[in-house]
Amino acid sequence: MIYLDNAATTLKKPESVIDAVVSALRTMGNSSRGTHESSLATSRTVFETRMKIAEFFGARGPENVAFTMNSTEALNIAIRGLVREGDHVITTEMEHNSVLRPLYHLLKDKVISLSILKADKNGVIDPADISGLIRPNTRMLVTTHSSNLTGNMVDIAEVAEIAHENGLIYIVDASQTAGCKPIDVEKMGIDVLCFTGHKGLLGPQGTGGLVIGSRIAEAEEGSGSYLRPFKMGGTGVQSYSKLQPSELPTRLEAGTLNGHGIAGLDAALDFINEVGIDAIDKKEQSLMNRFLEGVRTIEGVTVYGDFGNPRTAIVSLNIWDWDSGQVSDILSMDYDIATRPGAHCAPLMHKALGTVSQGAVRFSFSYFNTEEEIDFAVKAVRDIAEDR
Amino acid sequence: MIYLDNAATTLKKPESVIDAVVSALRTMGNSSRGTHESSLATSRTVFETRMKIAEFFGARGPENVAFTMNSTEALNIAIRGLVREGDHVITTEMEHNSVLRPLYHLLKDKVISLSILKADKNGVIDPADISGLIRPNTRMLVTTHSSNLTGNMVDIAEVAEIAHENGLIYIVDASQTAGCKPIDVEKMGIDVLCFTGHKGLLGPQGTGGLVIGSRIAEAEEGSGSYLRPFKMGGTGVQSYSKLQPSELPTRLEAGTLNGHGIAGLDAALDFINEVGIDAIDKKEQSLMNRFLEGVRTIEGVTVYGDFGNPRTAIVSLNIWDWDSGQVSDILSMDYDIATRPGAHCAPLMHKALGTVSQGAVRFSFSYFNTEEEIDFAVKAVRDIAEDR
Repeated sequence: MIYLDNAATTLKKPESVIDAVVSALRTMGNSSRGTHESSLATSRTVFETRMKIAEFFGARGPENVAFTMNSTEALNIAIRGLVREGDHVITTEMEHNSVLRPLYHLLKDKVISLSILKADKNGVIDPADISGLIRPNTRMLVTTHSSNLTGNMVDIAEVAEIAHENGLIYIVDASQTAGCKPIDVEKMGIDVLCFTGHKGLLGPQGTGGLVIGSRIAEAEEGSGSYLRPFKMGGTGVQSYSKLQPSELPTRLEAGTLNGHGIAGLDAALDFINEVGIDAIDKKEQSLMNRFLEGVRTIEGVTVYGDFGNPRTAIVSLNIWDWDSGQVSDILSMDYDIATRPGAHCAPLMHKALGTVSQGAVRFSFSYFNTEEEIDFAVKAVRDIAEDR
Repeated sequence: MIYLDNAATTLKKPESVIDAVVSALRTMGNSSRGTHESSLATSRTVFETRMKIAEFFGARGPENVAFTMNSTEALNIAIRGLVREGDHVITTEMEHNSVLRPLYHLLKDKVISLSILKADKNGVIDPADISGLIRPNTRMLVTTHSSNLTGNMVDIAEVAEIAHENGLIYIVDASQTAGCKPIDVEKMGIDVLCFTGHKGLLGPQGTGGLVIGSRIAEAEEGSGSYLRPFKMGGTGVQSYSKLQPSELPTRLEAGTLNGHGIAGLDAALDFINEVGIDAIDKKEQSLMNRFLEGVRTIEGVTVYGDFGNPRTAIVSLNIWDWDSGQVSDILSMDYDIATRPGAHCAPLMHKALGTVSQGAVRFSFSYFNTEEEIDFAVKAVRDIAEDR
């Protein structure tokens, strides 16, 4: 199989990730839940991974990293733990449902009011438009770092500047960029970065988390920037405290962590640091461009997005007016190429692009794909388009 | 190492669990996120595991099983998704912080009022005492199935009867019993069962979930028994619905599931079904009794709990008036025996048992422990107690 669905999950993981998970499954106790060697070793692995994540994303320290099951959970924690009743929130049409749905629920429950920044016909937003949406009670800005449909990126450093000039909290969804685009929360001015471990970070499913910028991390309980806990439960420390302890990262973690998955993520970070994020990005961009150059001139093929701007390694397209699900099925069944069709949990992007009913076939590339695979995929698209 | 901390996490997993996780790490796409083979195969694995969990716990169907990161998350979803403002909730002193803290937070936020059923000096509750706590606005009852400190069980079928006679919703924390004690949510009248995958179920960390009884599953949106969503986000289906879809289990799951972990849980369920839960329970009970008989007569040893009643394979003890952390350290360093000291996230149990400052050393047994390990542990306890 030629796997080109890496924006959903990277299928190929470094062998060291698999080895680390196997070793963890044979030796791991419960992190922070005992003083014997297998529990301590687990705590050490979790702590080391926190350190590496903190360093990787430019956080002040390991305590500013909290682990979750996935990026969606991280976004729920960040959004719902920071809004206050009566807040106005700004987001964009580029968002995934993991941002939109928590906000729509808060809107329905009359906790917040909401403005959604329009994207142009290529699905791109202009950060300069944000200022026009700011109201006196605007308190939070949530944007993706990159669209999971077109791959187009948001200049998060620019957005952060606008956010801070206006006293807004800025939450970034890095589901599509963590592991393949450099991010530094402190330098870029991000308040909370939400990431997943199983995509660009090349780790196991069931991993992800929040990287908390210093402004939020240092906020005192009761203050407007205090990130309230979302789940409460056992923490292995301060058992006699009735409430969830306020220290980070304990405040945001409850119950047994996915130690086995985190061990894999730890190894994945080592792999990425060894290869270098720039080398990974460069290879992915080269594969994406090779694919794009191959398909964009094929008669009947429409590609979506802005190809003049920074982007992650995604090309979404349609062939003629054919249903994207049907095209993806042909790619899978006749060519053994894995892509993703349909709506991609990004409803407003399909409205911007005019592909609500057709959906789009998404090709997304990873460091482990090869030029031969790309060439085969281009040929497949050409064959299908010509065969009408 | 002799690992006797199985109530925190089972260290030894069946080899088939490790094989299944490795295979998943090599082949798995993203469940419900594509139509190609690696995505479909993932969806199938997740669905099959849902089926097996449903069957294992007597649920009506696979849609009544929702996956979470752990039992704590499941309890947060169940408790916070079912309470309404002004409700009175009853729980017990036997609970873990995963039950107590979500309730204390709701109490602090003035959403609920709370009564806590007293345990006797052995840390056991009498279900008959529940009736005395019921008020006109009582709507929910939350109990553990078994104390994580003493191993003493709650007769959940009896509690369920009291709950339903009084129109209460009954939530059960099965963290200590799932996988080693038979549970049938429909026959026993449980409304929501919360389980973890990495303890008695012998699966990987990062797995767990809710098994939803038919009364809650069938409740219509807006009705008092409707379990509201806790996390919102991408679901791979109904992308154009602004709100989290109301169908189960989608309503309670958002973002990418821990497919790699669930594949391991799937294999773990096969192992348990093959060996038989009764055989597992019998062996664990036999190991526990062997240990108990060995240590209870040693001068200076105090064991905690009621040993005349049904229990999970846990023996918690102290030696003289020594700090439990110190004893656990000696066991680890001098004997290479892994136990757990301290407060065990069960603050009210320590109050009931009178061990708030001393804590207790917990020995917890698994199907994979051996009689030789037990005998060695008994000898270690004797040596330590005599060496004063």
